[in-house]
Amino acid sequence: MSWMGLSLIGAERGEPGGPTFTGWNPAEGVALEPRFHGARPQEVERACVLAEQAAPTLAALSSRQRAVFLEHIAEALLAAEADFLAVTPKETGLPPARIQGELGRAAGQFRQFARLLEEGSWVDARIDRALPERRPLPRADLRSLLRPVGPVAVFGASNFPLAFSVAGGDTASALAAGCPVVAKAHPAHPATSERAGLAIRAAVAACGLHEGVFSLLFDAGTEVGASLVRHPAIRAVGFTGSRGGGRALMALAAARPVPIPVFAEMGSINPIFLLPEALAARPQAMADALAASILQGAGQFCTSPGLLVAVEGLGYEAFRARLAEKLGAAAAAPMLSPAIAERFREGVSRLAARTDTRTCARGESKAALGAAALFEAEARVVLAESALTEEVFGSCAVLTVARDAAELVRVASRLEGQLTATVMMDAGDTALASELLPTLSDRVGRVLMNGVPTGVEVCPAMVHGGPFPASSDGRFTAVGTGAIRRFVRPVCFQDVPDALLPPELREANPLGLWRTVEGVLRRE
Amino acid sequence: MSWMGLSLIGAERGEPGGPTFTGWNPAEGVALEPRFHGARPQEVERACVLAEQAAPTLAALSSRQRAVFLEHIAEALLAAEADFLAVTPKETGLPPARIQGELGRAAGQFRQFARLLEEGSWVDARIDRALPERRPLPRADLRSLLRPVGPVAVFGASNFPLAFSVAGGDTASALAAGCPVVAKAHPAHPATSERAGLAIRAAVAACGLHEGVFSLLFDAGTEVGASLVRHPAIRAVGFTGSRGGGRALMALAAARPVPIPVFAEMGSINPIFLLPEALAARPQAMADALAASILQGAGQFCTSPGLLVAVEGLGYEAFRARLAEKLGAAAAAPMLSPAIAERFREGVSRLAARTDTRTCARGESKAALGAAALFEAEARVVLAESALTEEVFGSCAVLTVARDAAELVRVASRLEGQLTATVMMDAGDTALASELLPTLSDRVGRVLMNGVPTGVEVCPAMVHGGPFPASSDGRFTAVGTGAIRRFVRPVCFQDVPDALLPPELREANPLGLWRTVEGVLRRE
Repeated sequence: MSWMGLSLIGAERGEPGGPTFTGWNPAEGVALEPRFHGARPQEVERACVLAEQAAPTLAALSSRQRAVFLEHIAEALLAAEADFLAVTPKETGLPPARIQGELGRAAGQFRQFARLLEEGSWVDARIDRALPERRPLPRADLRSLLRPVGPVAVFGASNFPLAFSVAGGDTASALAAGCPVVAKAHPAHPATSERAGLAIRAAVAACGLHEGVFSLLFDAGTEVGASLVRHPAIRAVGFTGSRGGGRALMALAAARPVPIPVFAEMGSINPIFLLPEALAARPQAMADALAASILQGAGQFCTSPGLLVAVEGLGYEAFRARLAEKLGAAAAAPMLSPAIAERFREGVSRLAARTDTRTCARGESKAALGAAALFEAEARVVLAESALTEEVFGSCAVLTVARDAAELVRVASRLEGQLTATVMMDAGDTALASELLPTLSDRVGRVLMNGVPTGVEVCPAMVHGGPFPASSDGRFTAVGTGAIRRFVRPVCFQDVPDALLPPELREANPLGLWRTVEGVLRRE
Repeated sequence: MSWMGLSLIGAERGEPGGPTFTGWNPAEGVALEPRFHGARPQEVERACVLAEQAAPTLAALSSRQRAVFLEHIAEALLAAEADFLAVTPKETGLPPARIQGELGRAAGQFRQFARLLEEGSWVDARIDRALPERRPLPRADLRSLLRPVGPVAVFGASNFPLAFSVAGGDTASALAAGCPVVAKAHPAHPATSERAGLAIRAAVAACGLHEGVFSLLFDAGTEVGASLVRHPAIRAVGFTGSRGGGRALMALAAARPVPIPVFAEMGSINPIFLLPEALAARPQAMADALAASILQGAGQFCTSPGLLVAVEGLGYEAFRARLAEKLGAAAAAPMLSPAIAERFREGVSRLAARTDTRTCARGESKAALGAAALFEAEARVVLAESALTEEVFGSCAVLTVARDAAELVRVASRLEGQLTATVMMDAGDTALASELLPTLSDRVGRVLMNGVPTGVEVCPAMVHGGPFPASSDGRFTAVGTGAIRRFVRPVCFQDVPDALLPPELREANPLGLWRTVEGVLRRE
């Protein structure tokens, strides 16, 4: 495999001419080959027009036909393992084992959506039959199902070069929904992106689909992305990244003549609540588990814990000492890009410079390496200072000590929207846990007990998303089969003859779907 | 019943002090008693704070407890029929029979949501059990369900003083979801609004709920509404009205420190496609049906037809003549408010003044009376001039004649987002109808055949909403049980002990819900 460094515009390649850039090896501090060429405006236009042309053809496929397409993508990704192992660790500083795991996850996402489509009931078919005899007015025959919204712009994330990037969950759920994808590669892993894009393109060709079903655009800056979000053919946006980036895309999308939804997953501080009995019973085991979670992937997970809230008392000192020891002893790890490492160092320095915050552990971060840091502050400080609850992307956490359980609950009730919240509890903590649960349920997408938030299972029940600013729209998940809901809308057919209806809505239920008939779920 | 003209702030009344206004009898052109007092800023604040306090208490109720509350509202509304009949026709110019029908619809909406809640499966419970033996990593126990988003601001619509106003579908679906409501009364029917608000408040009291579950604010201007949308306690907005109004609320909501969704239903021109065989076979019957639809409620329906597209040929002249005759012969009808009548007259005058458009029928509109109007233009003009496809709220339609079927399809493909599109067809039109269907499905929320779009059934399969600008977010319906989806978001519980889980997610399925277990719908 040789990398061309050119965008994929449907079945063709972009041309040189735009601004160029290269990948970067954060572990070795060197630029990588080849040079990548940013998409030119006419290429952005061409990709969007092709996507618009492809949209009705992809929407016209049956769920089962689209499932075959998704299976092809999964296979094409897995077949490219050697290529990913050759370039992705270099581009990201992530170890090969992580890349292998992430590739399995990326392929698995496409397969999980394929199974959802094969079963078919995801279209939420609803049937209310005509009531010609009803008085005072008869009722028409009404049948609805979910249909794709149209072309989706997907922004690859830096922190999961496979599972949340070009061939990640946003692309998988958009294609599953029947929406063409125009992906914008993250400039931190362009060779990985090109290879993933080629895998999807090969599946498009193998299935004989319209070339506009998928395009991939390169750009080191923000212009290509902004043009994409503004393009009239684009109907929705998927993004994983910083709050600033997400908010900028939301503003662009809201200002369009025809506004479109942006699904921005912007990370959070994923608070951990250490309840008194659990803290007293197993301070060291919890410290070990949380240290591992904070250190995982150099802290570059959306779900990395950034705030730990405990109550003063038995076990607290032991917990703090052990956590500080573990984090302080960890070697500085390569971060995904020099810019991310730089922002991490700045965030850590800001916390270290505070007089109301004590540094418990702080290794030496240099160049593209990030060393873990732990700070401690009283809960009253955390309640008063929003700076202590802002995400520092990387292995950095603030440990907060509350005077009593009531203050711990108060910290919970003041949280911004979060992807996750975790409660460490023992049987004796049940009353306090019950009190915390509704508060946390109102502020987060996922509540965990006695686990760590890093590690986001891909399954129907997963919710990866939370109230703003964790996500732009907390009503949707970005991971799991529920993610397909972001890219569909219901359409109702009234008195349409059976032969003209989509098969999902025909009287005989030829696909054997679960359908809501007169308000009741049935499979007949 | 005597009307006080003061806002309902939880269990209390607002006080005089804000700007005042009165209702207006459009049929007689006189101001109505009493004087209504706009909510003062501290009352807006109080209503929002109460709603925030009420939110966790309403969310903590079971679906079945909320169903009882909704039934109480339905009963309280029906019990107020005499009061509505005393004031609503005067405030709106709508006939008593329409008010009775609308009251039944309003009460019926609460009852339909009550039945949805009683059954309970609407929470979309999903369960993926732990897989402790899985390799390389075990899977945690993951369970998710839908939960209310928090307080919702509801803007009453002018055109359905009961079914889309204070006690309308937005309020019903928000309360059903478990979200407190702060309603802003439409100033065109304040006495109706006060009475409806009192009915809801009585149900809140009868069920022993937190007073903040419902408040009602008066205002003749836009300040109270803008303050509501900006208030941090408000988590979503429901609105039915003009595109300008909806877009203004969307901009306010997007600019908040924490953006919130706005569900604005902004109307559309609801195109009717008259296919050749049907036109040739029954021009007069179709003209009669469409004239009745255009005239219904003085054209003040979101789904009123404003564009008719036919192909030149047999039946066209007869259809046009009959439609012009029917619309021209209709008496001018009182419109909902002087402002609406004024905008209608302006819209009709603008069309009449065009040199590329022919006036087929135009009665005399004066004061608050609107007389139906019909214009005719060639399809090439409609394709070139967006002014001909802009909604004129009232009984006003543009009849477009295409040279051939291809031109008719081209008109369809250029449409903005619409609530509905209707196809009039006979068996011989099937091929053309099949060609039209995907195009229409991409642009509208509801596709009808051989019917009229006015009349929006309240049922599970209904979709009342469509791509922008028909709605702010075409992924949701404003009518039917699906409307509850606007005001909920999923929350996932990971490894939470069974006793601490919401009953909907407990292993034993104590509520007997349909749940997605390991991806499969089950009721055990």
